[in-house]
Amino acid sequence: MKDKGILVVVSGFSGAGKGTLMKRLLQEYDNYALSISMTTRLPREGEQDGRDYFFVTKEAFEDRIAKDGLIEFASYCGNYYGTPKEYVEQQLAAGKDVILEIEIQGALKVRERFPKALLLFVMPPTSKELERRLAGRGTESPEQIQRRLERASEEAEGIECYDYIIVNDDLETCTKELHSIIRAAHGTPGRNEAFIENMRQELKALVKGEK
Amino acid sequence: MKDKGILVVVSGFSGAGKGTLMKRLLQEYDNYALSISMTTRLPREGEQDGRDYFFVTKEAFEDRIAKDGLIEFASYCGNYYGTPKEYVEQQLAAGKDVILEIEIQGALKVRERFPKALLLFVMPPTSKELERRLAGRGTESPEQIQRRLERASEEAEGIECYDYIIVNDDLETCTKELHSIIRAAHGTPGRNEAFIENMRQELKALVKGEK
Repeated sequence: MKDKGILVVVSGFSGAGKGTLMKRLLQEYDNYALSISMTTRLPREGEQDGRDYFFVTKEAFEDRIAKDGLIEFASYCGNYYGTPKEYVEQQLAAGKDVILEIEIQGALKVRERFPKALLLFVMPPTSKELERRLAGRGTESPEQIQRRLERASEEAEGIECYDYIIVNDDLETCTKELHSIIRAAHGTPGRNEAFIENMRQELKALVKGEK
Repeated sequence: MKDKGILVVVSGFSGAGKGTLMKRLLQEYDNYALSISMTTRLPREGEQDGRDYFFVTKEAFEDRIAKDGLIEFASYCGNYYGTPKEYVEQQLAAGKDVILEIEIQGALKVRERFPKALLLFVMPPTSKELERRLAGRGTESPEQIQRRLERASEEAEGIECYDYIIVNDDLETCTKELHSIIRAAHGTPGRNEAFIENMRQELKALVKGEK
């Protein structure tokens, strides 16, 4: 009965635990594919091409743009970041639910292009917990933490653009909840047009005694 | 973080197995309450007042209407049928998700009055299976089966008014799916306004260094 996969956009505050959550979701369930972004920035230590990002030159990226090969892209601090279209479309056609981890501007662009995309926003249980997690990383200066909190405060204004919020308190519970929400989304009428139309035709035929 | 309970409207073809599904849902999970309709028709054999329906006089029903004591009501074959408001509101306030099993016209009236109501439509996996289930009851004449199929064919035109379709193939799977969909619905931004607003205020205070 199901249409093909759903494009799932995941956004959320830095420190909300999106990365860990996505990793767990892909470990636990086999119906997901994670989209990998393309960027022109240089790899940081430990980052691998094809795992963390596809690292490409500015020319290669602009060639993609020209050929309409990106679902969305943006420029940030002088570098391009974008979502290659081909992989996403292949996985969706194969029935996988494809996860895109991008911020709100990108999320809204994806929705314009894929109106049936599911937009999820991951939140910490409290702002105090967010602050604690950002501080707990130990890798950021107080100024960086302050900037992330400012960014979170701005992003919080856009939450109503999302279909669901997901409160990341306990990782296990949150992974299950995320999976449930995506499974549930497969049941909207808009994602089952062929099934509904077929049922209508069959019922009409039965009423007329044609079957 | 959660707002109070969700009003869940369940419709679906006669023969789709709604009754059995609701019964199982209430057996398996304790966060649900089933709304009981009020009617002026006489009890059928085996039907109990307060379990199957609240059986009342026409005068008592019209008194409810006058006092705005019904969420929705309709008149069918000379009898009134309606949903008493008080019980539903009490249960929602107590955090229960309240299930209303009503047909499409009633469902749309509920949505007008409770815009956050969740509308679910239960379907059989195929029209053939629907026909088989209707025939299998053994209680209906071919004419009655025909009428139910005609009714189903009409109702199928309204499926897009619902938030989700639920395909009742296997009872266990379907009960879990139903529960998942209702749980997921608790996570929409519109049902978490207080939590989101509180997070915004807290983040603003943190950014300003007030906490």
